[in-house]
Amino acid sequence: MTTPTRRQLANAIRFLAADAVEAAKSGHPGMPMGMADIAEVLWNDYLRHNPSDPHWADRDRFVLSNGHGSMLHYALLHLSGYDLPIEELKRFRQLHSKTAGHPERYETPGVETTTGPLGQGLANAVGFALAEKLLAQRYNRPDFDVVDHRTWVFMGDGCLMEGVSHEAASLAGTWGLGKLTAFWDDNGISIDGEVHDWFTDDTPARFEAYGWHVVRGVDGHDPEAIKAAIDAALAVDDKPSLICCKTIIGFGAPHKAGKEESHGSPLGKDELEGARQALDWPYPAFEVPQAIYDGWRGNAGQQRQAQWQQQFDRYAAQHPEAAAELSRRLRGELPEGFVEQADAFVAKVQAEAPTIASRKASQNTIQAFAPLLPELVGGSADLAPSNLTQWKASKSVTAADPDANYVHYGVREFGMSAIANGIALHGGFLPFDATFLVFSDYARNAVRMSALIPAHVIHVYTHDSIGLGEDGPTHQPVEHLATLRYIPNNDVWRPCDAVESAVAWKAAVVRQDGPSCLVFSRQNLPHQPRSEEQVKLIERGGYVLADAEGGAPDVILIGTGSELSLAVEAKQVLDAAGLRTRVVSMPSTDVFDRQDAAYRESVLPKSVRKRVAVEAGVTGFWHKYVGLDGAVVGLDRFGASAPAGDLYKYFGITADKVVEAAKAL
Amino acid sequence: MTTPTRRQLANAIRFLAADAVEAAKSGHPGMPMGMADIAEVLWNDYLRHNPSDPHWADRDRFVLSNGHGSMLHYALLHLSGYDLPIEELKRFRQLHSKTAGHPERYETPGVETTTGPLGQGLANAVGFALAEKLLAQRYNRPDFDVVDHRTWVFMGDGCLMEGVSHEAASLAGTWGLGKLTAFWDDNGISIDGEVHDWFTDDTPARFEAYGWHVVRGVDGHDPEAIKAAIDAALAVDDKPSLICCKTIIGFGAPHKAGKEESHGSPLGKDELEGARQALDWPYPAFEVPQAIYDGWRGNAGQQRQAQWQQQFDRYAAQHPEAAAELSRRLRGELPEGFVEQADAFVAKVQAEAPTIASRKASQNTIQAFAPLLPELVGGSADLAPSNLTQWKASKSVTAADPDANYVHYGVREFGMSAIANGIALHGGFLPFDATFLVFSDYARNAVRMSALIPAHVIHVYTHDSIGLGEDGPTHQPVEHLATLRYIPNNDVWRPCDAVESAVAWKAAVVRQDGPSCLVFSRQNLPHQPRSEEQVKLIERGGYVLADAEGGAPDVILIGTGSELSLAVEAKQVLDAAGLRTRVVSMPSTDVFDRQDAAYRESVLPKSVRKRVAVEAGVTGFWHKYVGLDGAVVGLDRFGASAPAGDLYKYFGITADKVVEAAKAL
Repeated sequence: MTTPTRRQLANAIRFLAADAVEAAKSGHPGMPMGMADIAEVLWNDYLRHNPSDPHWADRDRFVLSNGHGSMLHYALLHLSGYDLPIEELKRFRQLHSKTAGHPERYETPGVETTTGPLGQGLANAVGFALAEKLLAQRYNRPDFDVVDHRTWVFMGDGCLMEGVSHEAASLAGTWGLGKLTAFWDDNGISIDGEVHDWFTDDTPARFEAYGWHVVRGVDGHDPEAIKAAIDAALAVDDKPSLICCKTIIGFGAPHKAGKEESHGSPLGKDELEGARQALDWPYPAFEVPQAIYDGWRGNAGQQRQAQWQQQFDRYAAQHPEAAAELSRRLRGELPEGFVEQADAFVAKVQAEAPTIASRKASQNTIQAFAPLLPELVGGSADLAPSNLTQWKASKSVTAADPDANYVHYGVREFGMSAIANGIALHGGFLPFDATFLVFSDYARNAVRMSALIPAHVIHVYTHDSIGLGEDGPTHQPVEHLATLRYIPNNDVWRPCDAVESAVAWKAAVVRQDGPSCLVFSRQNLPHQPRSEEQVKLIERGGYVLADAEGGAPDVILIGTGSELSLAVEAKQVLDAAGLRTRVVSMPSTDVFDRQDAAYRESVLPKSVRKRVAVEAGVTGFWHKYVGLDGAVVGLDRFGASAPAGDLYKYFGITADKVVEAAKAL
Repeated sequence: MTTPTRRQLANAIRFLAADAVEAAKSGHPGMPMGMADIAEVLWNDYLRHNPSDPHWADRDRFVLSNGHGSMLHYALLHLSGYDLPIEELKRFRQLHSKTAGHPERYETPGVETTTGPLGQGLANAVGFALAEKLLAQRYNRPDFDVVDHRTWVFMGDGCLMEGVSHEAASLAGTWGLGKLTAFWDDNGISIDGEVHDWFTDDTPARFEAYGWHVVRGVDGHDPEAIKAAIDAALAVDDKPSLICCKTIIGFGAPHKAGKEESHGSPLGKDELEGARQALDWPYPAFEVPQAIYDGWRGNAGQQRQAQWQQQFDRYAAQHPEAAAELSRRLRGELPEGFVEQADAFVAKVQAEAPTIASRKASQNTIQAFAPLLPELVGGSADLAPSNLTQWKASKSVTAADPDANYVHYGVREFGMSAIANGIALHGGFLPFDATFLVFSDYARNAVRMSALIPAHVIHVYTHDSIGLGEDGPTHQPVEHLATLRYIPNNDVWRPCDAVESAVAWKAAVVRQDGPSCLVFSRQNLPHQPRSEEQVKLIERGGYVLADAEGGAPDVILIGTGSELSLAVEAKQVLDAAGLRTRVVSMPSTDVFDRQDAAYRESVLPKSVRKRVAVEAGVTGFWHKYVGLDGAVVGLDRFGASAPAGDLYKYFGITADKVVEAAKAL
C-alpha cells in the first residue's frame, strides 16, 4: 500500500467496528460505518490530544453521545495510538475487556464520559465546554492561554429526539459556548425504521432558535466538505456550532447500508464480505496494514503537549499562586486544611444549636465552605430562592462574563445534572446542582450516571417530604429517598438538624469516587444535643443519638431528617413507660451500610428485635433495618395539599404513632 | 354595576386568585393575574364545555400545564358555573378541600389532568389531542362528527424550558394535531428572576421548526388581540398552534407586577389593597357581584351538549354498532367476555408450556388481546423490534392517516409516557407504552403521574436485568424493579414465564384505577408447571409454585422473573439435602401486599424465618419479605458488559448461590 487515502483511513474504522461486532455476536456496526469519514477528518486534522497521555489537562474533549457506536470510538483510540491494543478490540463486549458495549470512562483510556443513555453525552459535552470557559476565564492571563481546548460531540437522531438535548442545547446557546462543536449524524434511520413518521423537526432551524451557529447539508462522506464545515465552525467563536452531516448508516454494506438492519446487529458473514469487496478492503478481520496505522499516527500529540507544558511552566513562574491552585484543582485534591476547617464549622454549629430548616443549614454550610473551595460551582434548576443554594460571593454565569461560580440552569433538571456530570469529569470543578427532591425524578438517569461513571457531583434536594405542605402530592416526595438510596454508589444524606447538615456537606465534598444526594427540609428542625464523640459518629451514617439508660435497650427507634425528632419525643414517653429506648439517627443508610460489622452491631444489636423506623416516606425500605418483627411509621401513599402540620397528623406520622408502634411490638 | 367589561370579568379571576392565596398564606398569584385576560377570552368566547356536566364526552379539554397557577383554574371553574362553590375557594390548599395547591383531576370537577410538574401538562394535552384525532377518525361518519373537540393548553416559560416540551411539541407537529392550541405565557419571569440569562430560545422559531403554526407577539392583556390570535389558530387545521402572549406577571399589583415577587407567595395585605385600587375592584375578598357572575355564565353549555346528544342519538340509530362500541369505550368498560377470553388464553399458554423470552410472551399476549380490545393503542420509544410491542393488525399513526392503534414515539420516553397519560385521561383508549426497563428513568415522573392522577396506562419494560448482556451497565437495570414498586398505586409485574406474562397483561388491562408496569426479559425463560389452581393464584401477585413435601417448609425461596427458575433448581438440591423447601413465585409484590393477611400468611408463614429471595437487582428491597434472618441473592452494584451467562456467574446469581445462602441460614 502506498500512502493511504482518507477513505482507506476511514475504512479501517469501518472494518474494526464491523469485525468486532461480528466477533462479539452483538453490537452496532451501522453508526461507526456511517460516521467513519467524519471521525477520520476530525481526529486526524483537528482533534488536539495526546494518545500517550489521555489525562493531559488541556486536551480537546471528544464525546460520543450516540454511545452505541462505541466501536467507532475504540477504533479511533486504537488507530491513533492510545493504550488500547488490538486484543482488546477482539474482546469487544466481553467480561473484563476494555471495550464495553457502550463507552465507559474508567474502563478505557481516552473515553471522557460514559455514554449510551441518549442525549446525555451532548449534555455532558456542554458541561465540558462550560468548564473550559469558566476555567479559562479564571486562570488564563495575558499571553498565557493555559486553558484553551475544544469540545467535540457526535450525536444521532436519538440524541436529538430526547428532551435532554433541548435543555442542554438551549443552555449552550445561552452561554455562547463557542468552543463546542456538535456533529449530527443525519442518517434518517432509527430503530423503528425511517424516521420520517416520528422525527420531522427542522433540526437546523431548531438549533438556530437556540442561538447556535449551524452548518447545514454537509456530505458526511466527503472529507473536503467535512473540513470546510469544521473550518466554518472554528470561525465562529461566540456560539456553539452544529454541523449537520448527511450520512448513510452502515456505509459500504451492500444490502444493509441505509437501513435499520445495519444499526444494532452484526452484519453477518456474507454482508460483511460484501462490504469488504465494495470498499476494497482485502484485509482479514482485525488486520490493519502498517501504512494505515502510519496514516493515523501523525497527530503529534506529544509535541503539542510538550509545547503546552513549556507554556505552563512559564505561567507557573510568573503566576505561581494561580498555577498552584489550578494544578491542585485539576488533580482533584481538596485545599490543604479543608477537613479541619469543615470540622471546626461543624463544631461551631453544634455549639450554636440553631433550630432552622435544613435547607437553611445547607446554605449556611455552603456559605462556610465556598470561600475554602474555589472549585465549587453551584446551581439550581430555577429554584435558587427555594433551594437556598446561593451564597454571598456566588456569581452567576452569563455569556458575557463567565468568571463565575453559580449556574442558573433554568427549569431543566435533567440537563442540569447531566451538565454537572460533564463539569465534574472535565476536572477543576466540584459541581453541585439543586432542585426539589420530587423533581430528582426528572434528572433520574443523570443521577444514576453520576454514580455509574462515577462523577464527583453533589445533588442538593430540598422540600424533602410532605413537610413542604400546601404544594401537594405532585410536589411531595414519598418514594424518592428510598429510590435514590437504591442507586448503587450513590450516597444519600437526610440530616436531622443543622449539625448533621454540615457533616453531610463535608462528606459529600470529601468523597471523591461518586455522587452524594443531600436531602433537606423546607421546615424548621430542632437542634439535637450531642457529645463531641457523637458529632464525630455522624460521619458513619448512623449512630446512637440517645441511648437507653440502665441496660441494653428494649426498643430501638430509628429516624432520619425531620422525623428524627419524633423518635426523640417518643423515647421520652417510652422511657417513662418503662421501656428502655434507644434512638438511632440514620442520616445516611448508604454510609452506615459501609461500616464494619462490629460498628453496625453496636448501633443495631441483632438481639434487639423491637425496632421502629420513622420516616415520612415509603415504609418498605426500612424493613432492611427493622426486619419482620419491627414496625415502620411512614407513608405508602401519595401526600396531599394542606399545611404541613395537618398532613403529619392526617397521615399519622407523629410521636404518638411511634410510641403506639413500639408498644405494640 | 352595568354590563361588566372584559377586564372586569378577568379581574374576578385576579382577585379570587390573589385573595385565596392570601387566605391560604401560600400559593401563586402571579400567573393567574397575568393570564386572566387570556383565560377570560378563551373560556367565554371559545371553550366548548358544559359546566353542569364536566364528563360530557365531546367537551373541549383545557389543560393548565403551568399548574402552580391553579387558582386561575379554580376561579374559572367557579365563575363559569362548575360545582365548585366559593367556600371551596376559601379553603384553597387546605386538607380535604377541592382546591389543592396544584390542580388534581379527581379532586376537582372540570380539571382534566393533574399538573404541577412542569412541561407534562403540554404532553398530556398532546395526548388528549391525539386521542381526539384517532377517535374521530375511527368513529365519525359522513354527516356525523360525534367526536369533534379541541384541546387548549396554558403553559409558562418553565414548561418550555423542560425537555419534555421538546418531545411533546415535536410529536404534535409531526402528527399535525390541528385541534391543539397552546398559549405561551411569555412574562419573562421565572423563580430565579428575569429569564434573559437562562432562557434565550427563540421560542416561536423553535416551534415553527417542529411544524407548528405560530402566532407571535400577542398582547396578552388585550382581549381583541387575543381573539384575533385564537381566530388565526382556528383557521389552521393541519398544524397545532402556539399563541405567544406577552403578559405581565402579577398584573395589577402596584409594586410586584412584572417581578418574581408576585410568582409564588401571597402578595401581602398592602400590595393586594393596592391592586384593588389599581384595577378598580372595590369588592371584598371572595365577593363577586352578580353582574360579573352573569357575564361568566353565557356559555350555553347545556344547550351545546343537548345538540350534540341529539346528533349522537341520530348517529346511534344509523350506526348502532359503532355507537355502542364508542359508548363502551368512553365509559371505560371492557368488552363483554374479555376476562373469560383472557383466562382461556392463559390456560392455553399453560398447556402449551413454551420456553420463550417473556418479551416474546408479552407480544403473544398482545396479539391475543388486541383483537378483543379496539381501545388498545400501543407504542414504543423507538424500540418496537426490541420491546416486541407490535402485533399483526397494529397500524402506525401518521399525520395523514390517524385511523391507527400504534404510536412510534421516537426516542422520547418521558414525552411518550406523559402523552400516554393524556390518551388515557381523554377516555376511549387503553394506552400502553414501552422502552427498556433502565430507561423508565427518563420517564420516571410521568410514570409517577400515571399512579398519582391516576391514569389507566400500561408501561411495558423489556430487557429487565443484567440478563440483557453485552449492552452493559448503562443499559442494565439494577435498582429499577425496586424503585418502580415504591411508586404508590403502581402495580409492577415481573413474570417468570409465558403464563405469568399473560396473567400480568390481563391484570394490567382489568385494573382501572392506576397504571401497571409489565417487566419482561430479553432472554428465554423456562416454562413452569402449574395446577389449574396455581394458575389462578398468579393473579394474587405471589403464590406457592412448588411446595415442600412431607411437612411445613424449613426454607422458603422467593423468586421473580428470570431468577425464579434458579429458585426451582435450588429447591431440588435443598430437598435432596433434607431441607424441606418451598418456592414462592412473586411476580407482583404490589398485588401480593394487597391480599388478605390469611392468604399472605399461607404463602409466607411467619414461623418460617429461613427465607432466601433471589432477584437480579438490589437486595435491600427484599428484606421486607425475608427480614433480618433471611438472605437475598441479588446485585447491589452496577452490571457489566458481557454475555448474560458470564454475568450471572460473575455476579453470583446462580442456583448454587441460592443453595449456599439457604444452607447458611
